[in-house]
Parts: sequence; C-alpha cells; structure tokens
Amino acid sequence: MTTAFPATRLTGKGVATRTRIVAAAADLVLARGVGGTSLDDVRAGTLTSKSQLFHYFPGGKRELVLAIAALQTERVLQAQRPYLDGLDTWESWDGWRTALLAHYAAQPHWGCPIGTLVSELTGTDAAAAEEVAAHLDRWRAYLSAGLRRMSERGLLRPDAEPDRLALAVFASVQGGLLLNQATRSNEPLAAALDGALAALHAAAPADSRE
Amino acid sequence: MTTAFPATRLTGKGVATRTRIVAAAADLVLARGVGGTSLDDVRAGTLTSKSQLFHYFPGGKRELVLAIAALQTERVLQAQRPYLDGLDTWESWDGWRTALLAHYAAQPHWGCPIGTLVSELTGTDAAAAEEVAAHLDRWRAYLSAGLRRMSERGLLRPDAEPDRLALAVFASVQGGLLLNQATRSNEPLAAALDGALAALHAAAPADSRE
Repeated sequence: MTTAFPATRLTGKGVATRTRIVAAAADLVLARGVGGTSLDDVRAGTLTSKSQLFHYFPGGKRELVLAIAALQTERVLQAQRPYLDGLDTWESWDGWRTALLAHYAAQPHWGCPIGTLVSELTGTDAAAAEEVAAHLDRWRAYLSAGLRRMSERGLLRPDAEPDRLALAVFASVQGGLLLNQATRSNEPLAAALDGALAALHAAAPADSRE
Repeated sequence: MTTAFPATRLTGKGVATRTRIVAAAADLVLARGVGGTSLDDVRAGTLTSKSQLFHYFPGGKRELVLAIAALQTERVLQAQRPYLDGLDTWESWDGWRTALLAHYAAQPHWGCPIGTLVSELTGTDAAAAEEVAAHLDRWRAYLSAGLRRMSERGLLRPDAEPDRLALAVFASVQGGLLLNQATRSNEPLAAALDGALAALHAAAPADSRE
C-alpha cells in the first residue's frame, strides 16, 4: 500500500474502497459525534490500516469528516426525490413531507447528520463548519426554488416572500430533527413539518385557502 | 484549598465562585463546543487551579457541563419573561417573539447552547444528553401551557392540538438557532418565528382570523 497517490487519483477500486470507508465512518460519527470518534475508531470500525486510511484521506480526520458531510447530504437529498426537484404544487409538498418522514423514521433518532456536524465543528474548525453549512444551504435552495415557482404562478400571495418561507420551512426540518434526537422519537419532526406546511398554506391567496 | 467539601456544601462565597466559573466556562463551551473545551482550557480561562476546579466540580467535566446547561437554560428562560409565563393571548406571543429575537441578536451567532449540547453529548454520554434534553423539555412545556390555555378559551380551533403546535413552534426556535449558527446571521430565527406564528394563527377559529 503506497501513500503516493492523492485521493483525487484513485483507481475505480480505490474509489469504491474510499466510499466504503466514508460510509462506515459516517455511521460512527452519527452515533458518537466528531469529537467522540477518533481515527483509531474509524480504523477499527472499517478494518483499515493506518497507511490505508492515510492513502485515502491524506488530509486526515478533517478530510474524512468533510467526505462524510458530502455523503450524508447526497443521502438526504436523494431521499426527498423526486419531490425535492418540484415543490411547486401543494401535492409535491405533501409528497416531500411524507418522503422526509419515512427517511428519518427508518433510522435511529440521530438528528440531522449535517446540522449536527455544523454545530460540532463551529467551535473547533470554522472553515470546515462553513463547508458543511454550504451543504445545508444547497438543501435549503431546493425549497426556495420550488416556492419561487409557486409564487410566480400565483399559488402564493403577492406579498409572500418565497426565500423567507423556505428558510422557515428548513428551520422546522432542522429543529424537528434536533428534537427527534433529544426526545428519541420522530414526533417532533412530524409536528414541525405540519406546522411548516400550515405556514405555507397561510401564505396562499385567501380565495384558494380551504 | 481543600477538596473535602462536596459541591453541595459550599459557603456563600464558594457558591459565588462556582457560579463565576460556570459562567466563564459556559462562554468557552459555547464558542468551542464540549469536545473542543478541556478542563485545562477552563482552568486557564477562569484563572482557577486544578484543586480549586476539583473542589467546585468533584464530578469533573461532566458536572461542569451539566451546570453550564442549567445556567444557559435559566438565562434563556429569563430572557423570554414575562411573556413565557403567559403565552395565552396573541399579544403575548408577539411579545415573546420580539424578546427571543432581541436576546439572540445581542449575542454572537452561536445557536442554542442547550440544543447544541444535546447533539454533542448524545454520542459520548447519553445520560448527560438526557439530562440536558430535560431542560429543553422544560422550555417547551411553557409553550404548551400557554397554548392549552388558549385552546380552553376558544382562541384555537377545537381540533387544534396545543401540545403538537407547541412542539412545532419549539422546533422552529431550535432550527432557527441552528441555522443562525450555520449562516452567522439572525435572519433564520426571525423567519422561523414568523413561520411558527403563522402556523399558530392558522389554528385559530376561522371567524377570528384576519
């Protein structure tokens, strides 16, 4: 095993191995936090040698954590598809809500892996925290895009602010997940999403409200 | 300095010193996270000797972290008063919103110190995380109590569920604070609270809505 290759020049097999390590490390970090997970834990949990780990992550724990954030983002975005790319009809918002709840109901109550990483990294590595926060922003942007289209099509009142509404909905998601973690239940996310959708409906033109 | 006295038998002066250490340590943990703050950091930041720290916190870092959580809870509850004890009129909810925003606008964008602690402790010390989560639940209970009174007085529709609405509002607060931290802005909390109050108003009887 050589350490001469930077991660960007991995072979196909190398990419697969790296992906396997990231996925396994993601589960460790999810369960124990960044602070509670050492590279030794990752080596033990992935049956990887020290030199292998350095080969795949020459940037060390920081590079591994950022790879985990990217993976978790892809996972959660994928779980919201196809609705995530629409979100411009009331039906697509209902579908999105159901998909998101199903995704988190199928996992232990660990909160949002991305939001949790931001919190944990903010104090110790501001640059890494910012990079992870950009993933959150990418997620939020999908909600904004849908609401903007709804606004253009008259499904929201002229005075409604799509970006601000999207921020509120996204805060409900993140807060619901944090409280899922705190209460070891999925009820907070369900209640939060119902509240968020009620706020969206309240921004619809009066004549279209039930 | 003796270490023979457990923290529960401190003198008046001792209590003041302990409180001073907790307050200073709270700022450190807020800025750097639990994982990023060692007892040595606390000693340096509070000009305290190792034996003093042990005297005041015989339970070590864990005891200190739990004291920080209790302090931060009292601070944030206090910042929401007198509204927090009411929350049974629409005016009190508006006042509460303003007070909460003012409280967080006056601080660096560090998110909710209590929610952040829960996330960070969940993986490493589940019992401590649970103890901190109980503070969050105490906060949430104030919102529930207010909404229950509003329900009893007919300010919410008969089919509205006060506890579930409270959970949604509280998720908005927590998510707004997490996104404040991620975006280094107070805009997410403001948008989240507007969304939460819109959802509450949507649960009012139709004839009382504007």
